[in-house]
Amino acid sequence: MTENELLFELIRSFKNIHEGADKVLEHHSPQALRQLVNLTLGPKNNSDEIASLINDYIKYSVKTGHKQYVNQLFGGYNETGVLGDVLATLMNTSMYTYEVSPMATLIEKEVVAKMNSYSGFANGDGIFTAGGSSSNNLAMLCARHQKYPDMKTGGLSGRKPLSAFVSDQAHYSFQKASYALGLGSNYLVSVASNELGQMIPEALEAAIEHSKARGEEPFFIAATAGTTELGAFDPIEPLAHIAEKHQCWLHVDGSWGGSLILSQKHRHLFSGIQKAQSFAWNAHKLMNAPLTASVLLVANPTILYEAVSADRADYLFHDHEDASFDLGKKSLQCGRRNDALKVWLAWKAIGDEQYEKNINHLMELAQYCAAFVEAHKDLELLSPVQTLNINFRFKAPEGIDANELNLAIRNQLLHEGQAMVNYCHLQGRLSIRLVLVNHQIQKSDLEQFFTSFVSTAKKLVAEVKI
Amino acid sequence: MTENELLFELIRSFKNIHEGADKVLEHHSPQALRQLVNLTLGPKNNSDEIASLINDYIKYSVKTGHKQYVNQLFGGYNETGVLGDVLATLMNTSMYTYEVSPMATLIEKEVVAKMNSYSGFANGDGIFTAGGSSSNNLAMLCARHQKYPDMKTGGLSGRKPLSAFVSDQAHYSFQKASYALGLGSNYLVSVASNELGQMIPEALEAAIEHSKARGEEPFFIAATAGTTELGAFDPIEPLAHIAEKHQCWLHVDGSWGGSLILSQKHRHLFSGIQKAQSFAWNAHKLMNAPLTASVLLVANPTILYEAVSADRADYLFHDHEDASFDLGKKSLQCGRRNDALKVWLAWKAIGDEQYEKNINHLMELAQYCAAFVEAHKDLELLSPVQTLNINFRFKAPEGIDANELNLAIRNQLLHEGQAMVNYCHLQGRLSIRLVLVNHQIQKSDLEQFFTSFVSTAKKLVAEVKI
Repeated sequence: MTENELLFELIRSFKNIHEGADKVLEHHSPQALRQLVNLTLGPKNNSDEIASLINDYIKYSVKTGHKQYVNQLFGGYNETGVLGDVLATLMNTSMYTYEVSPMATLIEKEVVAKMNSYSGFANGDGIFTAGGSSSNNLAMLCARHQKYPDMKTGGLSGRKPLSAFVSDQAHYSFQKASYALGLGSNYLVSVASNELGQMIPEALEAAIEHSKARGEEPFFIAATAGTTELGAFDPIEPLAHIAEKHQCWLHVDGSWGGSLILSQKHRHLFSGIQKAQSFAWNAHKLMNAPLTASVLLVANPTILYEAVSADRADYLFHDHEDASFDLGKKSLQCGRRNDALKVWLAWKAIGDEQYEKNINHLMELAQYCAAFVEAHKDLELLSPVQTLNINFRFKAPEGIDANELNLAIRNQLLHEGQAMVNYCHLQGRLSIRLVLVNHQIQKSDLEQFFTSFVSTAKKLVAEVKI
Repeated sequence: MTENELLFELIRSFKNIHEGADKVLEHHSPQALRQLVNLTLGPKNNSDEIASLINDYIKYSVKTGHKQYVNQLFGGYNETGVLGDVLATLMNTSMYTYEVSPMATLIEKEVVAKMNSYSGFANGDGIFTAGGSSSNNLAMLCARHQKYPDMKTGGLSGRKPLSAFVSDQAHYSFQKASYALGLGSNYLVSVASNELGQMIPEALEAAIEHSKARGEEPFFIAATAGTTELGAFDPIEPLAHIAEKHQCWLHVDGSWGGSLILSQKHRHLFSGIQKAQSFAWNAHKLMNAPLTASVLLVANPTILYEAVSADRADYLFHDHEDASFDLGKKSLQCGRRNDALKVWLAWKAIGDEQYEKNINHLMELAQYCAAFVEAHKDLELLSPVQTLNINFRFKAPEGIDANELNLAIRNQLLHEGQAMVNYCHLQGRLSIRLVLVNHQIQKSDLEQFFTSFVSTAKKLVAEVKI
């Protein structure tokens, strides 16, 4: 077989491992799994032993491309995306210089430019990072650098505190960024959201005024495009207005919902995004590319370089005619895996139009789920379905704690490998959070999911009652 | 074919693409390459077009597993490592929770424990990061948190400056970390090194005293285990003594040379490492795993969690019996690619003993290169060979600028695809920096390299003279 044939055959074979598996996972405790697999390193193993370990790894891995895997904000198995990522490993180049990664560099630039055609950052730039958390961290760093460029050398010590603003529904990576960047989480202000989980612009403005009154210097606002729990979108347009008024950087954290911008039908959710300064977009989520494929897009074409470039790298970055193509100068990383190839190759294979259809399909399925739950006598929605997160639970009969019951249902499905779905807490109520991310999922898969869920619930209720 | 057979066949096939290629690369300028490949995204491409793009990608990629690729601090093609990375993509799980990545979690813990058996961090811990720069950044963050835990909430503002110390040969990622962490690069003190590029302990102690006298608070010292240019090792033992005396965290940046610790013969280079607080080790360099496989090891088993854990992640991290296995709580990342599998699988296939032999083999080759250059009438060493970096140049005949000539030789080799070798500047002299990292390289490959180098040099000299 040619390399191409081998690649395609391998990709198809593992697609079947994911989609064709009887169970989403074969669950074991860490203690039990340690007994089943010889993990210890030291002596050399022969090729039969290696083959056996590979089989173990496949067997005991969660099948994240399975259609009953609705557990996380990633999933699915984008064949060409997987192929692109495998190819990136096989060729193993590092993204710091054009010289070492010629075609990969052009590919990363093309993907960034393509994404910016959606963000509306007409002269924008961008860089692949290690994930959404890294993108949010880098956005905050760029924001700080734009407002206080002398902090690159002088640091934060001896200055007034800088304050940053996110909604109370924002991702915890902003907390981590506040630690790492030396801001301190006390100065990461949590702004109230409405009953849908969308940041309230008036609350933001008040929070900024309070922060100023405390002697802090507001510099950064993050709007979330798709919150982790409710799938809510903060209203970008009014937040952009407030950001401009107070000379703050507006970042849009689209780590989860960013890819909805691919759909003309749903692009209104991002209304005003062209007024933002940065946008985090994870192709490994709603574009179903394998982990990780995260991009930070920025409106200012020189800010990445200005914020992170260092001068002690003579051994790597040389003065030459192609030097402007050396992407490493605008990354916090040095050696960097090629994450752009999978996004580019998948985009080539799927195209704008089909991506739009896939996104619209998922959004329709979400409404189908909402209607299904509402019509079902034993289920209830715990929050309106806004995008692709369906928060619901089984109504507990009298005398049974709803939180305990729903947790038990969820764990039972997982232990049996029937389905994998996650949960969160909404105002103290345990909420089953079904996430629609895998483009291949159809109504029949969701019917199967709800059937498993309800029948497991009924079994558990019956056991308690007996 | 079974999945296993497909995997092995694919890996072998690409090994041949790297090692069997006529040229290390087919060089084109960005402008020319853009004409050769249709990069533009938008419309859907058919499967023939995708196959053709895959062929383009392979054709125009640098063959980093080629034996004439001695350009960078990574290279080679560790078959089982490549297979493990491909498998990680194919199964596509995320490293935040045991639930989603059961076997991968145990594997990451096993690799960290195994590495700590070398570092001597008896009760230590560790985490995979996005690369050596990320590991160094995280080490600095842990150091700061250990000394000033209240900065997690209170930040750096309004405080005295914190100072960090690295040698003048240290990697530029410490500069980037000083920007990102909000320390400011003015407070990253560059400590003098000796003629071999090793940090001078007395200079460190003086620099710390000066910093204190300026009203700064020293908190962090990094010893480099393998500098990028000279391959120098800072003397860990005396630096550990100074660190302890001044209550600083001692980090060992083994991003390049860390894997030398696998060899009993060369482990003396790390003498005193068990007294350090952290150690950055990249398996994607001297263990020839594909990019990236970087680990930050820490002596204090709770510091990672303490420095980075956030409380806003109810949707992801749950209280349950296996919660201590959820690695995401001690990472700055949220979704995280499985980089441990390739290291583990390769270690299983190669074993401690063979890794040691591979390291010793490379160290012997380095001495062979040193002797070869010294014995060659047209070549000269620009620095003694300490580990795996060979800095040399062609002696320019009178009337020819040595820097220009050696740069021209290097570029000519690259443009012809004969060999790929990088360069740096040592006290103003352009130095060809040959790096020995690929375990498969033999003396004959190096003879071929020097033959190409010298004959290209002579051709260029002749052209100038004509």
